[in-house]
Amino acid sequence: MAKNMIIGQSGGPTAVINSSLAGAIDYAFKQDEIGTVYGMINGIEGLLEGNLLNLNDKFENKPYELNRMKLTPAMYLGSCRYKLKGDEEEYKKIIDALEEKNIGYFFYIGGNDSMDTVSQLSKYTKKNGIDIKVVGIPKTIDNDLAGIDHSPGFGSAAKYIASAVRAVAYDTSIYNVKSVHIIEAMGRNAGWLAASSVLARHGDTIAPHLIYLPEIPFSVDKFISDVEKKLEEYNSVIAVVSEGLKDENGNYICAQGNTTDKFGHVMLSGTGAYLKTVVEERIGCKVRALEPSVLQRSAGHITSLTDIDEAYNLGIIAVKAALNGESGVFSTLKRTSNLPYCVEYGTEDVDVVANQEKTVPVEWISKDGNDVTQEMIDYLNPLIKGIAQTPYRNGMPDYIDISHLDIKKQKYKE
Amino acid sequence: MAKNMIIGQSGGPTAVINSSLAGAIDYAFKQDEIGTVYGMINGIEGLLEGNLLNLNDKFENKPYELNRMKLTPAMYLGSCRYKLKGDEEEYKKIIDALEEKNIGYFFYIGGNDSMDTVSQLSKYTKKNGIDIKVVGIPKTIDNDLAGIDHSPGFGSAAKYIASAVRAVAYDTSIYNVKSVHIIEAMGRNAGWLAASSVLARHGDTIAPHLIYLPEIPFSVDKFISDVEKKLEEYNSVIAVVSEGLKDENGNYICAQGNTTDKFGHVMLSGTGAYLKTVVEERIGCKVRALEPSVLQRSAGHITSLTDIDEAYNLGIIAVKAALNGESGVFSTLKRTSNLPYCVEYGTEDVDVVANQEKTVPVEWISKDGNDVTQEMIDYLNPLIKGIAQTPYRNGMPDYIDISHLDIKKQKYKE
Repeated sequence: MAKNMIIGQSGGPTAVINSSLAGAIDYAFKQDEIGTVYGMINGIEGLLEGNLLNLNDKFENKPYELNRMKLTPAMYLGSCRYKLKGDEEEYKKIIDALEEKNIGYFFYIGGNDSMDTVSQLSKYTKKNGIDIKVVGIPKTIDNDLAGIDHSPGFGSAAKYIASAVRAVAYDTSIYNVKSVHIIEAMGRNAGWLAASSVLARHGDTIAPHLIYLPEIPFSVDKFISDVEKKLEEYNSVIAVVSEGLKDENGNYICAQGNTTDKFGHVMLSGTGAYLKTVVEERIGCKVRALEPSVLQRSAGHITSLTDIDEAYNLGIIAVKAALNGESGVFSTLKRTSNLPYCVEYGTEDVDVVANQEKTVPVEWISKDGNDVTQEMIDYLNPLIKGIAQTPYRNGMPDYIDISHLDIKKQKYKE
Repeated sequence: MAKNMIIGQSGGPTAVINSSLAGAIDYAFKQDEIGTVYGMINGIEGLLEGNLLNLNDKFENKPYELNRMKLTPAMYLGSCRYKLKGDEEEYKKIIDALEEKNIGYFFYIGGNDSMDTVSQLSKYTKKNGIDIKVVGIPKTIDNDLAGIDHSPGFGSAAKYIASAVRAVAYDTSIYNVKSVHIIEAMGRNAGWLAASSVLARHGDTIAPHLIYLPEIPFSVDKFISDVEKKLEEYNSVIAVVSEGLKDENGNYICAQGNTTDKFGHVMLSGTGAYLKTVVEERIGCKVRALEPSVLQRSAGHITSLTDIDEAYNLGIIAVKAALNGESGVFSTLKRTSNLPYCVEYGTEDVDVVANQEKTVPVEWISKDGNDVTQEMIDYLNPLIKGIAQTPYRNGMPDYIDISHLDIKKQKYKE
């Protein structure tokens, strides 16, 4: 007899998480073994509060709406940063909520922390003989997930960063004066996003001139000396810095980097702004710091079609795996060839990815510590390819309605 | 006998100045009265230094290259902020340089200050019976030019701002916590760009919740009270502020706004960053300030096709006018109908635009001073329409080579 399915999203947004959601539900709608498809509003929190959305009503036999949702950035179902306490009472609440809706298949789209939720929940169901398959679908712009060649969401953010750097390079080329632009990329403790700025180089445009990743200790003195050297050669110098740069003692370069979220992660911002003040003081030329901030993860108008497609396929693979009896796994992909670019889909034990951080191999960073190597460029190149046909209306990207996330009843400072 | 033509670009970049350049030279190539078409590298400075580019060599009978240049943001010919001193010696130098190249037609693409250059030079040639027609082609993202319905460059920047606000609205919708996002738009003393964020609203998405323009005095207390009221209604509040906001005494809200450029303009930045600290102190919820900065004027991947086309046409109109014997004018457009959107091209005395600033009519600002009216929306709507088919290569916008601007010989601190 058919069991129902539930799916949720968790962690930070990317431009392609909804593509994974679209892939999973589109495939599920066609499977006899799956009855109703529910969405959890704001992840596990929505499940515990009974805040669910019937996704058959929203998207079954509505291909245009499904496509709009697929190409809408951020999270159609909303997010949470809920960390399982891991006590029996909480597990029981979750299982009760799932059994009440006759759920046989549970999917969670997220990063390292969300995969920890998948790991814990799948162990609990196995141990207690509960027939609910629990499967993860990976995402993160940071590309720091283990067990997968690259994370869905990363390619689009990489394309955004590279395009932004190229735009700044053109913008700043027009003046015949010395200037420095410092562009801060996200990525926490992994330098993948900062590294992707290298794809801005083309033809005569060699910006970014300098790239700094958090995988090796950052020296402000060395940075200033690097910038001075480049200024001898070029009018306009563009440096890309990772938000997570640390000095040789392991302290974040950004002084403001001292608040922490629920998972104990340090919340970073301001590395570029800080280095701007240093360049002003020590070099004294025109200097600007740019922080694309959340735009790099939410710009639905400059996504990678490769990324959109892979995210979609990873949604399908997860549903297939659950129907196949797998649990405690996540859907993943391996790169089998770079030229032509080919990948192979499959699943992997979720403990491979949960709470891990995949950082940039130091061999992919130049010896000087201010650039990346050809291996990195070869790795990155295929991930940003293709243009998604985002629907436009009135000159603007026409994203899907998300009024179900609008919790107007909630009062400020509650 | 055919005379030669020269064209230059001046002031700050936009995403469509090169489209005006493309229109002007593409039309000029086909005219028997025009011989060689020269480009001034870095505007008047390039003319005085003999730094010219033969544009026939670069683009004549090269439609693919011309199209790439047309869709490349910033300025193919580079810019300057050179202000004419207005003395006889300087005029003589300019005229000598023009006559040396047998120039009969002089075009300058720029904003208010560049139009002042056109005005002065055309008066000098008239007074002295010199047969050189001097014509301006308008541009600015700020939309503050008089004598034209809207400025080329504005529509694309407006589309960028609206798309960014919509992306942030989706990004921030996913969390079930109170937050404030402050997005700072460019525009100097005119609120057009901040106002254009209103186009982000669609369907259920009502962000931006608050919009502040510099045309009316800004009160920090009123701002905080506005934000608090919106936070009672919505989880996530998005406020768009113009960089040029001033208090009732005419002082810029941003404390850093106290450096000036050569034209005496105050260089602004940091209004959003300042207001972020005020929200943190007085309200205490999660708050982020976003400053898209130069990306709003240089993002070639999210331009308005309407803007691109109009910029191109204004290039043609300017060349036509010069061939018609006009001088001391600029090419302009009037809106003859809003639905359907229609414009009429023509020319106007350059003194109408030189050194003027067209600000937002106060009737187009809501009574509360924190939003815009339907008249503003109707005015803005047609300007962002259409998607330009920017060429892509390797997943990235494939802009034209600009190595002629790369002045590697110049040393730092010279």
